[in-house]
Amino acid sequence: MDIGQRILFDLFVIFVAAKLGGWAFSWLRQPPVLGELVAGMVIGPHALGFIGRPDAELVAALGSEEAARAALEATYRTMAELGLVFLLFSVGLDMRVEEIFRVGRRQLFVAVLGVVVPFALGYASMRWSGRTEPEALFVGVALVATSVGITARALRDLGVIHSVEARIILGAAVIDDILSLLILGILSGLGGAVPPSSLDIVLLVVEAFAFVVFVALVGTGVVRRYGPPLSRFTTPNFPLVIAVGLCLGLAVLAGRVGLSSIVGAFLAGLVLAEARAHYDIERAAVPVYELLVPFFFVDVGAEVDLGVFARGELLGLMVAITGLAIVGKLVGCGLGALGMGWRPAVIVGVGMVPRGEVGLVVVSLGRALNVIPEDMFAVIVVMSVLTTVIVPPLLARLYADAIFRPPPVAVSEDVAHLGRADAGRSEERRGER
Amino acid sequence: MDIGQRILFDLFVIFVAAKLGGWAFSWLRQPPVLGELVAGMVIGPHALGFIGRPDAELVAALGSEEAARAALEATYRTMAELGLVFLLFSVGLDMRVEEIFRVGRRQLFVAVLGVVVPFALGYASMRWSGRTEPEALFVGVALVATSVGITARALRDLGVIHSVEARIILGAAVIDDILSLLILGILSGLGGAVPPSSLDIVLLVVEAFAFVVFVALVGTGVVRRYGPPLSRFTTPNFPLVIAVGLCLGLAVLAGRVGLSSIVGAFLAGLVLAEARAHYDIERAAVPVYELLVPFFFVDVGAEVDLGVFARGELLGLMVAITGLAIVGKLVGCGLGALGMGWRPAVIVGVGMVPRGEVGLVVVSLGRALNVIPEDMFAVIVVMSVLTTVIVPPLLARLYADAIFRPPPVAVSEDVAHLGRADAGRSEERRGER
Repeated sequence: MDIGQRILFDLFVIFVAAKLGGWAFSWLRQPPVLGELVAGMVIGPHALGFIGRPDAELVAALGSEEAARAALEATYRTMAELGLVFLLFSVGLDMRVEEIFRVGRRQLFVAVLGVVVPFALGYASMRWSGRTEPEALFVGVALVATSVGITARALRDLGVIHSVEARIILGAAVIDDILSLLILGILSGLGGAVPPSSLDIVLLVVEAFAFVVFVALVGTGVVRRYGPPLSRFTTPNFPLVIAVGLCLGLAVLAGRVGLSSIVGAFLAGLVLAEARAHYDIERAAVPVYELLVPFFFVDVGAEVDLGVFARGELLGLMVAITGLAIVGKLVGCGLGALGMGWRPAVIVGVGMVPRGEVGLVVVSLGRALNVIPEDMFAVIVVMSVLTTVIVPPLLARLYADAIFRPPPVAVSEDVAHLGRADAGRSEERRGER
Repeated sequence: MDIGQRILFDLFVIFVAAKLGGWAFSWLRQPPVLGELVAGMVIGPHALGFIGRPDAELVAALGSEEAARAALEATYRTMAELGLVFLLFSVGLDMRVEEIFRVGRRQLFVAVLGVVVPFALGYASMRWSGRTEPEALFVGVALVATSVGITARALRDLGVIHSVEARIILGAAVIDDILSLLILGILSGLGGAVPPSSLDIVLLVVEAFAFVVFVALVGTGVVRRYGPPLSRFTTPNFPLVIAVGLCLGLAVLAGRVGLSSIVGAFLAGLVLAEARAHYDIERAAVPVYELLVPFFFVDVGAEVDLGVFARGELLGLMVAITGLAIVGKLVGCGLGALGMGWRPAVIVGVGMVPRGEVGLVVVSLGRALNVIPEDMFAVIVVMSVLTTVIVPPLLARLYADAIFRPPPVAVSEDVAHLGRADAGRSEERRGER
C-alpha cells in the first residue's frame, strides 16, 4: 500500500478496535480504557499483527525495512503523543489551580515517599541478588517516575476526577516528575563523559520548578486579568486555536526544561480553566479527546508481548521487578496519604503505580552505557506496561460504590447542559469537599 | 530530541505557523488557506528548515538518517492525511446528495473534457518537442487527475461552497477520479510485467463506480431509514464515534477500490448529512477541522522548493508543463461548463486546476519503469504544487463580489446558532438557487 493509504488504514483499524474494546468493557461494567488497552494487545504486532508490521510495498516505497518500521512507529507515536497530551489537557481544563495546590503538603509527602521507597526497594533488592552497583542504581531509578495518564483517564471514566484522592494524585504526579528529573540528572552525571556539576543539576531542578510555579500562578493570573479583553478578538474559533497552541506549546516547553510533556499539557488546561471561554473550550475539547485519546491506550496495549511470559528464565525476574514497582509505590504513596484514612491512602497508592516513559528513558540510558543488560531492559519495559494495565481494574474495584458516569458528552445533550453550565459545574464539584 | 518531544515540537511549530499565516492573510483580505501554504513554504525544509530536517539525536535514536527522515515524513503525513480527509468530510457533511448529483450531466461534461483536453495537450506537446512515446503518455496522464481539496477549502473560506459552481466542481471531481482510475489502470497495464486484460480494467472501473453509487444512494437511504433508531444508542458521543469511524472507513475503502481516499471521506460526509444527529456531528467536526486541516496545507507548502527556479535549464520545462496543466483544465472544464455563462465556466475551470497525489503516483510509476527521467519527475512535482497554490487567490479574485464569510464557529456564538439551526441552514443555502 501507498504510505498515505497505509496510514489511514492503520488509524481506522486502531480507532475502531479502541471503540469496540471500550464499548465491550463498559458493557461488562469495566473501565473503557481497559478495553482500549486490550484492543491494542489484540491488534498489535505481538498478536494479530493488524498494525505495526510493515508490508512489502511499504518497505519498497521507503527503501528499507528499518525506514518502513520507523515510519509506522512515527505514525502511531504522533497520534499517541497527541492523545496523551490532550488527555492531560482535558483533565487540567476541568480543574482549578487552587484545587490542585491547596492540599500541597500531603501531595509533597506522597510524592517524596513514592520516590524514596521504590528506589530503596529496587536498589536494595538488586544489590541483595548480586547485581552490580550501577545496575542496581539504574533499576532503582527506573522504578521511580509515575506516569499519571492512565490514572487520570480511569478516574475520569469513573466520574471521580474531582475527588480528594484524584487531586492528591495529580498534584503529587507533578512533584514526582520534578523529583524524577532531579534523580535522572544525578544519574546521567554518574555515567556521562563530562559529569554535570551539582550546580548544573540544581539549576535544572530550579528551572523545572520555576516553570511549574510560573505557569500555574502567573499564567492563571494573566488569563484571569487579560482573558476577557483577549476574548473580544473576532477571529473565528480564536479561543479554540489559543487552546490548542497553548497545550502543544507548554507540552513542548515542559519537555525542554526536562519535565514530561504531559505536565505542560496539564498546566495548559489548568491555566485555560480560568478563561471566560472555558466552557466553549471544554466542549470543543470533547470531540478532539474522543478522536485522539484512544490512540495512546491502543499504542500502550500494542507494546504488550505476552509471549515473554513463556520465556521461563525471565518470568521470575519480571514478577519480582513488577512486584517491587507496585509494592514500592503502594507503600510509599500510601504512607504519605495515610493521614486520610486507609481507603483513600490505598487509592492514592494505586493511582501512583503506573510507570511510563521516564522509566524507559532511564533504562535506555543504562543500556547505552552498558550498565543494564538486555534481559533487564526487557523486564523493565514489561514492568512499565504491566503497572499501567493493572491500574484501571484496581481503581474500579476501589471505587466500586461510585456510579459509573459516562464521559462528558459533546453531542445532543450538551445544549441542555450549557443552559445550566454553572449549576452542572458546582454539582460535579460537590463530591470533592 | 527524543522522538516524542520532536513530534510535539514539530506539530506545535506547524500549527502556530499555519494559524499565524492564516490570520495574516485574512487580515490582508486573502484566503487564509494561502497563508497556510506560505507558512509551510517558510518553515519547510527548503527555506528556514524548522521542520523536515532530522537532528543528530533523532538519527542516533532511530539508527539511520533514512529512518529518521521516514519517521518525520510519516508524522507530517499522518496529520496531513487526517486533515485532508476531515476537510472533504466536512464539505460533504454540509451538502445533500441531491445537491451534488442533480446537476449530473453538466458535471459529466466538465469531468470528461477536463480529462481529455489536458491529456491531449500534454501528450501532443511532448511528442512535438521530441520526447519518446511512453514519456509523452505518462506526462499526459499526470496532467489528468484533479485533487479538489484546496478548491473545497478556498470555496469554504469564501462562503460560496453552496454555489452552483462549487457543486459542479465537487461532483465533477468524483467523476474525474473514476476516469483517472480508468486511465491509470490502462497505463499500468502498458508497463506491467503481466499486463491486465481489458476485462480487469473494466472491472476496476465498474467497482469504483459501484462504490460511489452504492455509498451515495444506499448509504444515504440507510441513514435516513435507520438513523433515528440507531441514534437512540446510549453510548456517549455515539454519533461522533460513528462519524469518525465512517469517515476513516470509507476513505480506506475508496483507496482499496482505486479511488482517492478523499472521495470516500466526501461520501461519508454526504451520507451523514442525512442523519438526525447531523447538526451535532457538524458542530463536533469544527474543532477537529481547526486542529487537523492546517497540517495538510502546511505540508503542501513545505514541499515547494523555490530554489528549483534558480536552475535555468528546468525553468522553461516547468513553465511549459505548469502552463499546459492550467490551460488544459481551464479550457477543458470551462468548455464543459460554458452553457452556464462565462464567469461560472471560468470558476469551474479554475476550481478543477489543482493536481494532487494521483499525478505524483503516475510519474513515480513512470520513473520506476525508467520511462520518466529525473528532470521531468521534478517538473511534475513542482507543477502539482504550483497548480494547488495558485487556485485560492484566483478564486478569491473571481468571487471578488462575495463577502468574506468566516468559517463555521464552534465556540461562543454557536449556542445562538443552534437555536436557529434550521433557519441558518436554509439561509446559507439561499445562494445556491
